[in-house]
Amino acid sequence: MTARRTDPEIQAIRDLLAARPRPAELAERRRRLDALGGSYPLPADIRVEPTRAGGVPAEWSEAPGADASRALLFLHGGGYVSGSIASHRPMVAEAGRQAGLRTLALDYRLAPEHPFPAALDDAVTGYRHLLESGFAPGRIAIGGDSAGGGLTAATLLALRDQGLPMPGCAWLVSPWVDLESASASMETKAATDPMVQKPYLLEIAAMYRGGTAARTPLVSPLYADLHGLPPLLVQVGSAETLLDEGVAFAGKAGAAEVAVTLEVWPDMIHVWHLFHPQLAAGRRAIAKAGTFIREHLAG
Amino acid sequence: MTARRTDPEIQAIRDLLAARPRPAELAERRRRLDALGGSYPLPADIRVEPTRAGGVPAEWSEAPGADASRALLFLHGGGYVSGSIASHRPMVAEAGRQAGLRTLALDYRLAPEHPFPAALDDAVTGYRHLLESGFAPGRIAIGGDSAGGGLTAATLLALRDQGLPMPGCAWLVSPWVDLESASASMETKAATDPMVQKPYLLEIAAMYRGGTAARTPLVSPLYADLHGLPPLLVQVGSAETLLDEGVAFAGKAGAAEVAVTLEVWPDMIHVWHLFHPQLAAGRRAIAKAGTFIREHLAG
Repeated sequence: MTARRTDPEIQAIRDLLAARPRPAELAERRRRLDALGGSYPLPADIRVEPTRAGGVPAEWSEAPGADASRALLFLHGGGYVSGSIASHRPMVAEAGRQAGLRTLALDYRLAPEHPFPAALDDAVTGYRHLLESGFAPGRIAIGGDSAGGGLTAATLLALRDQGLPMPGCAWLVSPWVDLESASASMETKAATDPMVQKPYLLEIAAMYRGGTAARTPLVSPLYADLHGLPPLLVQVGSAETLLDEGVAFAGKAGAAEVAVTLEVWPDMIHVWHLFHPQLAAGRRAIAKAGTFIREHLAG
Repeated sequence: MTARRTDPEIQAIRDLLAARPRPAELAERRRRLDALGGSYPLPADIRVEPTRAGGVPAEWSEAPGADASRALLFLHGGGYVSGSIASHRPMVAEAGRQAGLRTLALDYRLAPEHPFPAALDDAVTGYRHLLESGFAPGRIAIGGDSAGGGLTAATLLALRDQGLPMPGCAWLVSPWVDLESASASMETKAATDPMVQKPYLLEIAAMYRGGTAARTPLVSPLYADLHGLPPLLVQVGSAETLLDEGVAFAGKAGAAEVAVTLEVWPDMIHVWHLFHPQLAAGRRAIAKAGTFIREHLAG
């Protein structure tokens, strides 16, 4: 068997992460994640504009040539307890550029101050705001990473159940869709995942869930009836504990007659897209997502 | 929840299949599958040429503009007991057109006359023939459907284990990779799958395996160590009993650091590509495969 070499760019990121273990204190975790976004200068041609989406703080971003009739509603990751517009700004701006549309990044409420269903309510509000602003549903994509990927799935389920029109497609990066963390890769990938371990997930899951059971479909979309969802792109790294739940979610959505594309990226770690300014595979993954979104939104 | 309407084109194909149940006798099954290929006229611009690939009967096909330095080695389906160059000629020609390359369809030996590993030996011989004919490995794709998809995976494993250079990528349509048929969709999709049922699979698996255990990795690649395989595109229909093993295979390959793209196509039945002249989703699926192959073969 041929020995594989690890991508040197991802190794540099691993070294960076290893040098700075996750802080125990939540406020410091939040600062750390926000600082990641700030560590990459935003390209000079990206125009950002703070706004409110039905009362929820949000931010538009736009690269030159964006189709102003199309929008990506983006739900950032951070375990429902951290992350922000700032933490994900470079990733979201690049996704908008590749998809050729405007992005609306949402500062949904975080746990534990605001447990489930606060984030979900805010996400639905953000989507309704786009509809009320005149965007055709078929010209809207919803996307998110990690907890924001799970929240993307939950938002689609809530829209369906509320009888709202579906967006044209959705994009889920390393989605966290099982708040019980019951899948095998929690163990089989524990040694290779530098960011996400089961005890951490269970800790933040408890903050988000509050008194709600972990298998509640809108908390853990892996356990939901997934019929009626729009086309989905799921991207997940081979070197992450969330691999199996991403694969299982894709399979379950497909079995429920959803058009699903799943990509597993060798060597890649949890939401490698965040590091795209220093990681070619991150840029390629965002470009693939951009192509997917372009192809699946209405003309 | 929104009720989905079945694609009227796939319904027409379902009606056709329902009107003509699978014959019990093997010779008649073979005639039937060959006749399917003959029922669609080959486009006038396709040039076909019989050949031998290291002694194995084979056929080149080529559409105008094909890059003569690139080839798709195609391994047809038919449960290892039926299928031929004739049965799959329209599908293979269209794949070659979409991928912009020459196709080499292989008439590998069939069971029960020639049980495992005859088909696998022939597939490896076909690949070696391409190398010996001057094709760079990075300019070769291997593809197959159903049993041919399983055989594609087994061929990659055999090439790896023999120390041969890997092809640039591989394309697996509705792959049969578990000759034990142990996955849940054997039951959950039994009612909706008009073609492939577990008793049938176990019957033909026994013909192919002969005395070899079903979980032998080269017989059932789902149970293999999948490290070192080239980028894979797996396409599977939502309405087929083989759905879960396709998803599981994709997940297992991804976990083994293989670059995997899995597509689940709503409403689609086993190897819907075969019906592409009367099925837009079949043409779209072949076009996606063509794009995948173009992107993954060396320049």
